[in-house]
Amino acid sequence: MSGYHIAIVGATGAVGSKMMEMLEEATFPIESVTLLASKRSAGKVKNFKGMELVIEETTPDSFEGIDIALFSAGGGISKQFAPEAVKRGAVVIDNTSAYRMDLNVPLVVPEVNEEALRTHQGIIANPNCSTIQMMVALEPIRKKYGLKRIIVSTYQAVSGAGISAIKEMEDQAQHMLNKEGYEANILPCSGDQKHFPIAFNALPQIDVFSDAGYTYEEWKMMNETKKIMADETIKVAATCVRIPVVSGHSESIYFEVEDELATVFGIQQELMIAPGVVLQDDPDTQTYPTPLTAVGKKETFVGRIRKDLDEDKGFHMWVVSDNLLKGAAWNSIQIAESLHKLDLVKI
Amino acid sequence: MSGYHIAIVGATGAVGSKMMEMLEEATFPIESVTLLASKRSAGKVKNFKGMELVIEETTPDSFEGIDIALFSAGGGISKQFAPEAVKRGAVVIDNTSAYRMDLNVPLVVPEVNEEALRTHQGIIANPNCSTIQMMVALEPIRKKYGLKRIIVSTYQAVSGAGISAIKEMEDQAQHMLNKEGYEANILPCSGDQKHFPIAFNALPQIDVFSDAGYTYEEWKMMNETKKIMADETIKVAATCVRIPVVSGHSESIYFEVEDELATVFGIQQELMIAPGVVLQDDPDTQTYPTPLTAVGKKETFVGRIRKDLDEDKGFHMWVVSDNLLKGAAWNSIQIAESLHKLDLVKI
Repeated sequence: MSGYHIAIVGATGAVGSKMMEMLEEATFPIESVTLLASKRSAGKVKNFKGMELVIEETTPDSFEGIDIALFSAGGGISKQFAPEAVKRGAVVIDNTSAYRMDLNVPLVVPEVNEEALRTHQGIIANPNCSTIQMMVALEPIRKKYGLKRIIVSTYQAVSGAGISAIKEMEDQAQHMLNKEGYEANILPCSGDQKHFPIAFNALPQIDVFSDAGYTYEEWKMMNETKKIMADETIKVAATCVRIPVVSGHSESIYFEVEDELATVFGIQQELMIAPGVVLQDDPDTQTYPTPLTAVGKKETFVGRIRKDLDEDKGFHMWVVSDNLLKGAAWNSIQIAESLHKLDLVKI
Repeated sequence: MSGYHIAIVGATGAVGSKMMEMLEEATFPIESVTLLASKRSAGKVKNFKGMELVIEETTPDSFEGIDIALFSAGGGISKQFAPEAVKRGAVVIDNTSAYRMDLNVPLVVPEVNEEALRTHQGIIANPNCSTIQMMVALEPIRKKYGLKRIIVSTYQAVSGAGISAIKEMEDQAQHMLNKEGYEANILPCSGDQKHFPIAFNALPQIDVFSDAGYTYEEWKMMNETKKIMADETIKVAATCVRIPVVSGHSESIYFEVEDELATVFGIQQELMIAPGVVLQDDPDTQTYPTPLTAVGKKETFVGRIRKDLDEDKGFHMWVVSDNLLKGAAWNSIQIAESLHKLDLVKI
């Protein structure tokens, strides 16, 4: 074979741009890359491996001859065009929430459940950014000691809400530093009624509110965890909070294992050899992950692992990863690499 | 009686300045205010109720004739001068961690354990900022439903580390916005070896590391909670994180009650009438507390109250308060007001 014909839908967005970067580093054979976006962005030029690629408007026929289509242009676009791409023979890797909980769609973090790709029927879903890094850090622990319960509080970066949200935070920060007035028009959620400043603030709302007082972001973490780990009995509770960080989601995770023999040292040993994990955990040298040190890297960084002092099988840890890379673009490219490795794309 | 002679030790600091503001709003009779600080700050002038007060160097004799001495100049200064103040007849309200866990020193949040003041032997400790707001929010729930367990992740503001830390964060932010290099010399903890940038970052370390991988800040929250609630059986686990916010600590709190009849509605009803609490909890109108809306206010703001979906007696909530006011200066002034109300200061 000569290589895959790849399409990126949403090539001008924060994640789409990172998909192009990650694709440059991919190890599977690529024959061509087609960049798709809205009509508004058509005609713009982007660089890929030294070539100039012209962005085209997304239409059903854009997917003729495409083998793998990477979607990251919002749930509506995925709903509209993913079936068209599949109809034309492409495998879709969708980075939106449109198909994640669809029973016929595998939801995949390659380090955790790569084998689920074998059941795909054309569409594969990339999990939510905050879910992915939590899965990468918890799966090695679950394999060794079992996992009963997760309580997570997130510290999520602004880039998860797109390039315009980063720009807004930076504008707000500059105005606040100048002691001037400032505007808020995007966060906590562009589709919601009210908007609040994120610069020098913390917003306990990501995505809109849903059932039982939880936001959709919190529901995503709770539901997707059970689907990826293929275990409906795991207890999961999430509180999702946006903080003024450009990129790099952090998570304070409490978890309870099954095995009473689990220790901090044992967990550290598992994470040290786990795929996609970098252990940064040494209080004596103030070694722990932070967003600024994790940004631009593909791994998930874990530190501050410690025993709960009251609960025999309870532990705490701090997990950081670049939400645009492992949380989105890199996980999508990894899925494509796994599809290639498992020979699951017909070309 | 004519009124109390008050001294503020550490009058030039972030908390000391707020103590002066709060003292202007206090309702107990004040005869005089003496401002004390280090030799370096002596001679500086500060305004109090329109009068110009000259700051004096702190010496043992500074406390002659003082009735109430408010300390907020670091644990070392408290250790050195609080006994001198007591020897000279003053009651000390200490905002450092120097005496908090001393068995002979009441640790007081007036809304929770005002009566503990009756046992004082000259020194009263003001709890840690992040503990105070958690106690104000949890005590009404504990009274009604009992309290078995707390797991808290904090989102703490930079002003807790002093005026110089705020300045450093603002400098870093400006340099980052300009795409320039930046320095880190104070946070996560001025007394520790390494320093990391806080602007557009999150640091999972507040104060230095201590036993079992927990930081002192985390130990403070765990130990002080048990002392203030006078219940050694409450399970408490804390993860303390600094985020780039000027003032206003936020907390994601999971808690388990004793009473299986507890409901979100019932908890909201209790908090609505609780002293020092403002309930801001309505997902339909995106109503919840944030640091920017809580700063400058004396109350503790509570929102995002919801049932844990897996644990019958488990709930989650989001608690925000101004760490310099209720977390420090205002709680100290409230203690002074309670001492006056209970007639516990001899003048």
